[in-house]
Amino acid sequence: MVSKALGKYVQSLHQKKYRLRHGAFLVEGGKSVLELLSSDLEIEHLLVTPEFASQNRAQLPARLPRTEASETELTQLGTLATNTTALAVARLPAEKPLPPTLPESALLLALDEVRDPGNLGTLLRLADWYGLPGVVLSPGCADPYSPKTVAATMGAFARVPVWERSLADWLPGLPPTVDIFGADLAGDNVHHLALRPQGVLVMGSESHGLTPSVAASLRRRLHIPRGAGGAAESLNVAISAAILLDNFFRNQ
Amino acid sequence: MVSKALGKYVQSLHQKKYRLRHGAFLVEGGKSVLELLSSDLEIEHLLVTPEFASQNRAQLPARLPRTEASETELTQLGTLATNTTALAVARLPAEKPLPPTLPESALLLALDEVRDPGNLGTLLRLADWYGLPGVVLSPGCADPYSPKTVAATMGAFARVPVWERSLADWLPGLPPTVDIFGADLAGDNVHHLALRPQGVLVMGSESHGLTPSVAASLRRRLHIPRGAGGAAESLNVAISAAILLDNFFRNQ
Repeated sequence: MVSKALGKYVQSLHQKKYRLRHGAFLVEGGKSVLELLSSDLEIEHLLVTPEFASQNRAQLPARLPRTEASETELTQLGTLATNTTALAVARLPAEKPLPPTLPESALLLALDEVRDPGNLGTLLRLADWYGLPGVVLSPGCADPYSPKTVAATMGAFARVPVWERSLADWLPGLPPTVDIFGADLAGDNVHHLALRPQGVLVMGSESHGLTPSVAASLRRRLHIPRGAGGAAESLNVAISAAILLDNFFRNQ
Repeated sequence: MVSKALGKYVQSLHQKKYRLRHGAFLVEGGKSVLELLSSDLEIEHLLVTPEFASQNRAQLPARLPRTEASETELTQLGTLATNTTALAVARLPAEKPLPPTLPESALLLALDEVRDPGNLGTLLRLADWYGLPGVVLSPGCADPYSPKTVAATMGAFARVPVWERSLADWLPGLPPTVDIFGADLAGDNVHHLALRPQGVLVMGSESHGLTPSVAASLRRRLHIPRGAGGAAESLNVAISAAILLDNFFRNQ
């Protein structure tokens, strides 16, 4: 049984305002909760069905406060259409300093006003696949700790560091030796380049592209060639990022 | 003003059952409606706000039955969070025959039980970008004419032919000269191949991968390499398809 107070607290975390006020966020579904348990994120509460608890005894640390909940309760308290396994409240991690040498030694992804939580989550999952050191988010991006984003990361929320930066301020201040890449229809065909994963790859919002001041700070413009008979005007932001990242990592 | 009968008809098309019964589907939002108008799909009804009508006079054919609607009406009748422009009812196109020589001369995408309409729409958009001749859908896929799929295609619904086939029956019957590609962790590293866009690329559902009988009909297995420090277990189905397609089209 979930107490009324805990239920209200969990439901308040659907909203960003309360996530910030309480410094906590929700992780929903068995797979995501198991990813959380194997990370170094701090857990406040664990709500599990008896079945999930017995099936995952080894992964559930005894010292953690744990509440048994029915599938109905988990579904009512959370945001998923149905949740038959588990839900956790985790502490929002403190933002670590962004190592200033980073964009010279590895590739960072920077997102400019990516407002859709599903796209943001898919992009974090992609950063996790390629082992990027982290993702820089402009203040206009979706909240990386919203339930929809967390679900779309498929566990990457627990591994990929994020930093919030005004890209218009941060990018121009990077040393001139750092490549700042962005997608541009008039850019270089990525199939003809031998890109290496160093610098910053900036991706803009799907509907509006890069904001003008961010577009002006690009140092290298890249273009994904369309098929000969292709008619689509553009690609989804996460799809474009995936194709670009594969082109960065194919020359290693 | 939208009549009660037309309103009820439009709302019935949210459901697949009524789309099949009436042989019609919904296209929502100004951009998608303009794509529909420039296609050869047949239009039954056009519901437009006065503002959209006056801004797009040239594209709105005089012979089409047209109803003026308020933004509130469009939003109430449709499935979008808000619709301030237009909504159309189009006839479901008849499935054209699948040219039997196709998979030898061009690359077809085949989807095995891709149930998420957003993923399906993104995959159709991708097929449109690369100019694929069409997409083969297993009966368990999401409906390509559901409002969510149509929205996610960003106009590709009006250009990319789809065929429904049992993949377990269709794939083994293809001539032995046709390559049938699929993603497999134990497959060949795509970065080391010089793939050409001919044959069939089969993508499975995100949660369950390919169904066993479909997996057994693959003739070439491909693997997208993960980054050295990467930890994600897998990629989203549309993301994987995008990376694979870019690898097919980079050698032209």
